[in-house]
This record gives sequence, C-alpha cells and structure tokens, in this order.
Amino acid sequence: METKERDMTEVTEEVTTPVAEELNAAETAADTAAQAATDVEVADERGLDIDAALELVEEKRYAQLRQILRDAEPVDIAELFYELPKHQYAVVFRILPKELAAEVFVELDSDLQQILIESFSDLELRDVLDELYMDDAADLVEEMPANVVKRILQNVTPEARKIVNELLKYPEDSAGSIMTTEFVRLKQDMTVDDAIALIRKVAIDKETIYTCYVTDRDSHLIGVVTVKDLLCAAHDAKITDIMEDHVISVNTLEDKEDVAATFGKYDAIALPVVDAENRLVGIVTVDDAIDVMQDETEEDFAKMNAMLPTEKAYLRTSPWELYRSRIVWLLLLMISATFTGMIIASFEDALKATVLAMFIPMLMDTGGNSGSQASVTVIRALSLGEVEFTDIMRIVWKEMRVALLCGGSLAVVAFGKIFLVDKLLMGQNITVPVALVVCLTLLATVFCAKMLGCTLPLIVSKLGFDPAVMASPFITTIVDAVSLVVFFTLATVLLHV
Amino acid sequence: METKERDMTEVTEEVTTPVAEELNAAETAADTAAQAATDVEVADERGLDIDAALELVEEKRYAQLRQILRDAEPVDIAELFYELPKHQYAVVFRILPKELAAEVFVELDSDLQQILIESFSDLELRDVLDELYMDDAADLVEEMPANVVKRILQNVTPEARKIVNELLKYPEDSAGSIMTTEFVRLKQDMTVDDAIALIRKVAIDKETIYTCYVTDRDSHLIGVVTVKDLLCAAHDAKITDIMEDHVISVNTLEDKEDVAATFGKYDAIALPVVDAENRLVGIVTVDDAIDVMQDETEEDFAKMNAMLPTEKAYLRTSPWELYRSRIVWLLLLMISATFTGMIIASFEDALKATVLAMFIPMLMDTGGNSGSQASVTVIRALSLGEVEFTDIMRIVWKEMRVALLCGGSLAVVAFGKIFLVDKLLMGQNITVPVALVVCLTLLATVFCAKMLGCTLPLIVSKLGFDPAVMASPFITTIVDAVSLVVFFTLATVLLHV
Repeated sequence: METKERDMTEVTEEVTTPVAEELNAAETAADTAAQAATDVEVADERGLDIDAALELVEEKRYAQLRQILRDAEPVDIAELFYELPKHQYAVVFRILPKELAAEVFVELDSDLQQILIESFSDLELRDVLDELYMDDAADLVEEMPANVVKRILQNVTPEARKIVNELLKYPEDSAGSIMTTEFVRLKQDMTVDDAIALIRKVAIDKETIYTCYVTDRDSHLIGVVTVKDLLCAAHDAKITDIMEDHVISVNTLEDKEDVAATFGKYDAIALPVVDAENRLVGIVTVDDAIDVMQDETEEDFAKMNAMLPTEKAYLRTSPWELYRSRIVWLLLLMISATFTGMIIASFEDALKATVLAMFIPMLMDTGGNSGSQASVTVIRALSLGEVEFTDIMRIVWKEMRVALLCGGSLAVVAFGKIFLVDKLLMGQNITVPVALVVCLTLLATVFCAKMLGCTLPLIVSKLGFDPAVMASPFITTIVDAVSLVVFFTLATVLLHV
Repeated sequence: METKERDMTEVTEEVTTPVAEELNAAETAADTAAQAATDVEVADERGLDIDAALELVEEKRYAQLRQILRDAEPVDIAELFYELPKHQYAVVFRILPKELAAEVFVELDSDLQQILIESFSDLELRDVLDELYMDDAADLVEEMPANVVKRILQNVTPEARKIVNELLKYPEDSAGSIMTTEFVRLKQDMTVDDAIALIRKVAIDKETIYTCYVTDRDSHLIGVVTVKDLLCAAHDAKITDIMEDHVISVNTLEDKEDVAATFGKYDAIALPVVDAENRLVGIVTVDDAIDVMQDETEEDFAKMNAMLPTEKAYLRTSPWELYRSRIVWLLLLMISATFTGMIIASFEDALKATVLAMFIPMLMDTGGNSGSQASVTVIRALSLGEVEFTDIMRIVWKEMRVALLCGGSLAVVAFGKIFLVDKLLMGQNITVPVALVVCLTLLATVFCAKMLGCTLPLIVSKLGFDPAVMASPFITTIVDAVSLVVFFTLATVLLHV
C-alpha cells in the first residue's frame, strides 16, 4: 500500500501531459475526491466495476478513477482496457501507480502492449520494463515487431538485456522459454537464520521466495528448502540438514506441456529448471504452469474440432481471424468427403433399387461418434501421459471388447427400431435381409471406428505428429468411407443388388 | 528427512505382522542393504523405477524396497500400487514411513483406498487419518461405503469428526466441498514478529502458510498477508498496516469450477472461502484448484464427444465401464438420426432420379464440422467466463459474418471441384443446376450450422443445463436434418424432380 502511494506521487510529478495538470488540479481537491470515490458504486464482491470506471474515463474524472483503480486487481484493469477507446489507452495507463502499471501491462495482449509502448516516452518505457519479471520481459520481446524490440532492448539495463537474450535462446514451448531467473539461491552451509536474513534482503525482486534452491559452488542443484521448512526448523540448523535432496526438476529443453503436467502430478508451486549438466538456471512458477495448461486445453479443443488454435479470447477475435482459423480444415475435410461421395456414386444402382439410402446418415453418424469417442479418449490419455505407444496392444484389446459391446447393443436396438418404426410405423418396404445388412454394417462400422480411433492417435504421435491435429478430424472421414464400403458390399452380397 | 527416519522406526515397532518380523530381521543387515539399495538402478532423473520396485516386492526384499520408496514422491508410489497384485497392497503400505503412507493414501483411487482400509487395524487406520488434511479426510468419507465411513468416524478425534461433518454439509462441487480448514489466522494488532512466531508454531499442521488471513473478533475476513510481505516488513510493523485489505475471496456455495477459474485469473496460490456473512471458514489451495481444472477439462472433452465422464485413468477403466460411459449417447444419437433417415426416405424419388445422393456425405460432414466449430468455441468461452447469455447478439453477429465467409469460400471451391473432379474426371452426369443446388445448400447448411452452434449452447446454459452435454452432441443431428431438408427442397424447386 505505502509503496504504491509513493509511486503515485512520483508518476504525477514526472508526467508532463494535459492529464498531469488535470491530475494536479484534482489533487488539491483530493480529500473531497477520496470521499466521493467511496460513494461511487465500486464493484461486486470481487473485481472492478468496469462500467463505472468507463463512465469516469468518459467524464474525465481521473482522480476518482485513480482511486478505484489503485485497489483493483491488474487482470481486472486489463479488462477495462479492452473496453476503452484506443485514444484513451495511454491516458488511463498513466493514471496507474508505477508498479501496478507494470502488472497491468503484463496482463494485456500483445496488440495492446504494442500500442502502449509506441505511445511511451523512453522514461516511461524504462519504468515499466524495470518492474517486469525477466520471463515477462522475454515474452514481450518475443511478441513485438523488430522496431519495438530495438527500443525495448535500448531501455533495459545491460544485465537485464543479457538475461532476456539468454531466455530468448531457448526454443519456443520449452521449459527454458517460460522460466524466470529470479529465484532464491541458498548455500548448504548456511544456517536457517542466514537463509531467512538472505530471503528478507532479496524477497522484493523474486517471483517466488517460498521454494528456495540449494546449489554447490558450480551451480549444480543439490537440494530444495521451502520457507515452511525454514520456519519449522531451529534457528541454527544447517541448510544441508533440513534440505530435501531428492529434487523434482525439469530440463531447459523439456516441452512446457510436460512441465505443466509435472506440476499437476507433484502438486508443486515452483519447479527448478536445470541444464544438461544439472546446473540450476531458472525456475517455473505454478501460475505460469496454469497458463500453459489452459492454453494447451484450448488448443486441444480447437484441434479436435477442426480449428487452428487462436490465442485471443473469443469476443476479442475478429470474424476474419475466426474465418482463417476455421476455413482450412473445413476445406480439407470437404474435399476429403469426395471419396465418400465417390463410393456412393459407384453403388448408384444398389441405391436406386432399394431403400438403403435412408440408413446412410445413421451409419455415418454412429460411426463418427464411435470413432471420436475412442480417439478423444486416447488422445487425452496421451497428452496426460497416461498411455504411450508401447501400450498399443492393451489399448486395442480394451477397445475391441468395448467395440463389440457397443456395436452389439446398437445392432440389436437398430434391428428393433427398423421393424417397429421404419417398417410398421412409416410403412417402408423393408425386408429381414435389408435389416440384417444394416445391423451387420452397424456392428462392423462401430468396430472399425473404435479400432481406427484408438490406434491412429498412437501411430500418429509415434511418428512425431500432433495426434489432436492429424488423427481427430480425419477419423470421421475415414470411418464414413469404411462404413459405406461395408454397407454396399454387404448389400451386394446379401441382397444381390 | 529426520522426521521420516523417526517415523520409520515407530512403524517398525508398532506393526506386528509377519512383514514386521521380516523387516526387523532385515534391519540387522541394514548397512549392507543400504549399500545394495544404492546399487539397484533407481529411477530416471525424476520419479521411481516401478519395474525395479515390483521386482523387490516379488523377491520380498522389503528392506531395500523401503530404502527406495522412502525417497520417492507419493504420487509415484501410488502408481506402483496400481501395478501390484491385490494381496501385496497391505504389505507394501506397511513398509512406508507413517507420514509418507498418508500422503500415498491420498493419491490412490477410492477402490484401492477401500481395500487398504479394510485391511487396516484400528491403530493403523488412526495413524493414517491423523496425518490427513481435513479436506482429504472429508473426500474419503464421501467416497467410502457406509460401513467403512462408520469405522473412519470412530477412529478420528472428536474435533476432526466435527470438522469433517461440517465440510460434508457443503454441496458437492461447491467451494465448501474442496476447502480445508487448516490455514493460518492472524489478528490485526499483531506485529510482524508475533505473526512469524505464530506461524513457526503452527506451520507443521497447516496446508499452506504462505498466505495468512487476518480476521476480526467475529471471524470476518478483513485482510490478507503473505509470508513474503512479513519478511519484507520491519520486525515491529503492525499487521494492520501491512495487510492487503482488498481480499479476493470466494463464497462457500460457489461452484468449484468458478473457484478454479478465479485462481487462473488472479494467479493466486490460495483463496479464502467465506460464508454469507463474510466470515472466514476455510481456504482453497492452488493444487486443489489445478485438480478441479483438470477434471473439468476431462469432463468437457468427454461430454462434447458424446461420452459420460469417467473419473479413472483410461488404462484403469474396465471395458464394461467404458461401454457404460459411451453407449447411452451412441444409442440416443443413433435413434435421433432416424429423423434424418426419414427425410431421405421421403425424398426417395428425387434421389433415384438424380446423382444427388453422392453429395449427401459431403453436405452432412461439412455441416457437422461447421456447427461443432461454433459450438465448441462458444461452450469453451462460456466455461471460461468469457461470454454470457447477454452477449448473444454480439456472438450471433460475429458468427453470421464468419458463416458467410466460410460458406461462401466452401461453395466456390465445391463448385470448382464438382466440375473438375466429379464431372470431367469421374464422368458423372452433372449439370450446372445440380452444381448450383449443391453449392447453395452448402452455403445454407454452413450458415444454419454456425447459427445453431453459437446460439444453442447459450440458450441451453441460460436454461440451467450443461451446454457441453445438451448442445454439443445434438448439433450434428440437427444440422444433418436441416441440410438434407434444404438440399431436397432446393432440388425440388430448381431441378423439378
């Protein structure tokens, strides 16, 4: 609180825009304003009342706006920005206390960050950059166009520039790319009191202090101590005696999704990142792991439903961006459905002679549903690390039994339905052989769909491709073709058409 | 480490089974065994080498097994249990140091927990229960059959029984049902040193100490202080001066998925849970929030792909359980495809007179894909809290433009494909009016699919149902029917069939 108060005054003094004058004028009436601010209807139980804030912006009541923003959470203020007209971004941003401003900045998406940076003076840019954690600074550099990157790197300290450059060297999606270098490092011969004194000194600049890492002279990771351990131990206990020396760590080059899964598995709030020689180079914190998990989930949902993943929230994605994320797969799948069409075309005579056509949608849909049930289950199990390629025989054997159970039940019900509904109720000209062909096809389709659904993702991922992209959307198309071929072949053989 | 060593001896002394004797015998050869254990190939860089452990179990080399388990993570030991033969569960469990045993117990699924409890003596049961956090104890009681619950409640302290009963009163899926009551509570007139002294005293029993909550005399939540704040502040600073008084809290009755979303939004590692009068009754920690997120994601994947969610990992789910989770929706969707079949049957003459049938799979698939793209996007946006029912007009307007862009592109490509591939290459008897009917149907189908896809989830969720269950699987069926009606109507009008 106090720090923020002080920052506020600094900002007010530094800024030399019309807003600043307006602010200074308002300052004289600060007491009244503060009183008024408490009268303004502020937020529900949590979060910021965005409509009220927008009204204050519109009426240029900046002193009051500052009052309510100062106590709001960064992520809520970021949401306010998305509702603001573009020309107000810089004005509202300058109202924020310095530290809070940096926190809000991190929450914004890259389009908005770029607009803000372009409106900053070098001094303002430096203030924001100073407050960023190194991993956020590296993310920023990664997402900005070249000219903006140049300005950013000119305005950070040489040490920060070095760290950012280091972080940028790690491949995208690696543990190195999401780690931060701001953690607490202890030596094993320290006492608990030494350690606590050190933490007190450096805490303010560290992303987390609750998990501290113990390294030897060559930076090798040899242990981990939590602040809880420190507080539970005697004041003069040696770190080496209280540290846990079986440390769960991740490698810099490890996939960030595996890192996130490791968090989920071990209930960690931070994980150390080591290089190939087990030297500690950074840490990943649980909030970053949660972001990775959420992004991964959204990506999987998109891919399994034939879309390219987009990074923005739905309401902030333009129709053109949505179109681009969707059209590729729609086109591909439409073209691939040509094969299914060809199969139908080549059995035209069989179709024209019988009532078979009416069963096509049912067979195709059931096949598609059966296949996607199996493929989604296996793809999720793969991405959660529950199964791997070597489990293929166990999986096939399991799905085979499920397929026979499902296919059998469906065939029996379909047989009943065909006679009761289609023949008796609808008066269709259906014979027992026709019903048999339909039910046998159903059984065969469900079986093939489940087999394809469970093996294709395993094979595709073994080949190094993403099963959610390569396996999921195509399974329906393949199953459609298979079911029609089975259908017409059985019809030709059993019905002699 | 030391605590665990001590526990180990206690367990060895208490246990009076053949295993214990075997253990004691082994104890005399402890030095040799310890040496041997380090020779055993133990684990990759993280985790436990399960095959090596299984071998030790088989060869009854329990002393060595204990050696490698003692340093393993609970979740990895849980995985070992799933590979063990049933009669070995109790033997291996008794090898574990007391505290570790309780941690492993929490990671097991309820079937296995039940088998273990049934094999426990009352003394052993009490030891495990003593080590459990209250939220885990409540989960356990919730999942066990009545006779086991009775034994559990008889073996906990009266205070614990009271807390468990309190926790069980909250509705399933509410914040109250996942919270724990073990947190650090501070008073506002304490100094920083008082607070740290208190934390030191109680830390061992608390699930998290890093976020402490400040309450007034009537337990109302008035502030939050992190251990980082405490360490950064002067020793004699008052809590009331350093605490953050704008606390993000959740209500006991709030849906646990909303609680998890709040964690993701505010990057919290713990959140306070308050009752209707803002009295602090518990906290939720980030590891529980991650579990909720993961369960929710799995549920959504299952529901959107026409399955009932199952709680177990794929390889541990029996074919019969998989069958039950899948057959309901397969049956429902198969029956509902009857309507699509009826539509085809009623246009039988049109089908027989023309080549229209070959386009049915393409139209149905493209409609289904377009619809699920929109519905999945909206369902995810709903479950992330990005959109709500009142956004319906913005969403419809956005999807309308996306639909026209997608439908238009697809129609143009389809027109080209029909002439180049189907007519010239395949020699099908296709006229311009037929191609026009197909392309117009495509445009109309994509449009209807996107409109249904984006509105249905909103409406269904407004009515209080789960959009992932009610909207997602049915959209394909509805879109199939719509596309066929449009197709045959256009064909009748334009082709006079």
